Amino acid sequence: MERHLDLELRDLKEKLLGMGGCVEKAIEEATQALMLREPGRFEKVYELEGSINQSHIEVDDACLRLLARQSPLARDLRWIVAVLKINTDLERMGDQAVNISHNGKRYLSEPSLKPLIDLPRMAQGVRVMVREALDALVNQDVELAQKVLDRDDEIDNLKDQIFRELLTYMISDPKTIERALNLILIARNLERLGDHATNIAEDVIFAATGKDIRHGGGKSP
Amino acid sequence: MERHLDLELRDLKEKLLGMGGCVEKAIEEATQALMLREPGRFEKVYELEGSINQSHIEVDDACLRLLARQSPLARDLRWIVAVLKINTDLERMGDQAVNISHNGKRYLSEPSLKPLIDLPRMAQGVRVMVREALDALVNQDVELAQKVLDRDDEIDNLKDQIFRELLTYMISDPKTIERALNLILIARNLERLGDHATNIAEDVIFAATGKDIRHGGGKSP
Repeated sequence: MERHLDLELRDLKEKLLGMGGCVEKAIEEATQALMLREPGRFEKVYELEGSINQSHIEVDDACLRLLARQSPLARDLRWIVAVLKINTDLERMGDQAVNISHNGKRYLSEPSLKPLIDLPRMAQGVRVMVREALDALVNQDVELAQKVLDRDDEIDNLKDQIFRELLTYMISDPKTIERALNLILIARNLERLGDHATNIAEDVIFAATGKDIRHGGGKSP
Repeated sequence: MERHLDLELRDLKEKLLGMGGCVEKAIEEATQALMLREPGRFEKVYELEGSINQSHIEVDDACLRLLARQSPLARDLRWIVAVLKINTDLERMGDQAVNISHNGKRYLSEPSLKPLIDLPRMAQGVRVMVREALDALVNQDVELAQKVLDRDDEIDNLKDQIFRELLTYMISDPKTIERALNLILIARNLERLGDHATNIAEDVIFAATGKDIRHGGGKSP
């Protein structure tokens, strides 16, 4: 027979995944608005952020109630603590999607700085990371979570490369400075989204295995 | 008679404050290295980050043990959950001090872009916020925590102003582009430090009062 706690944990995880779905959608809208030059789509991001913030409060609240009423132990306790942390990351990811929208709006108010160099590739890579981190969470899949961690270096390298290229643009043609600066800030926003996906993956590994792999214990050799 | 739980909670808070002290020191070293052009001080930041990361793991671990062994309720439970969250913020603040050091090193490798506009003022404001957020935590001082929240707008405004001024530099003299860009990134790092101090203040208010003031419920009118 299923324990009452299991039902509540499943409920909690579903709530968190609904929130994760909104976060994914917000990132999609923000990056597609930028790539396809459809600034109207940024509005959708602000809407989604509202519901992400609402979920943020609800998930925290549900975790506190579970901790108070069920006094969970071992793996159950680890999952609830992981959910508390993942909840914070998801909320901040919503903020980053909003930041991309702010910077993206400014960028789109001027003619395109073509091409968008490797930014679409970086955006795509980050979206895959977020997708995989959430899948790892649903399925408590430690192997997939590990894959997310390994992807983070790739994203950081892409960001460095994008920085360098944009800097070259700015220096060789000062008319591009404002636009290039907006793209640099967007690359930073994307990098931070990747960092949050990494945090989620680390929490999934911790919850599933009890192993704290942060601060150097985690990357594949 | 003092409950065993009270002793453990006090212990936990002390550990967290030790970590907070390292974070403050790291921010001080990073910003002073930049302002005084003393790049050697950045090394201290990397050292401090190592011990912040170590504390991060220890505090999380202590929280989990407390939750498992003591099944705390109400205000005690809220404090432990707040400590879990504050712990994450402090760790990320260490990362931001490191980011300031990276960007600061690059900045200092070239002649000064004088003056540093409002960056010293912004750094000072952020350090006050961090100090007050930690004081609010020690003393469970809701009023002081509220003051931290109110300061955040000031920091954001300073950052916008710094951005605008640096952009003007870049456009009027392309030789300044790289240096100005480094300072823009540092202003972003400082802004994020302010955001983390805000998060801590919100958690202090929540732990002390049970009131979730995030997402719009918190600022003074």
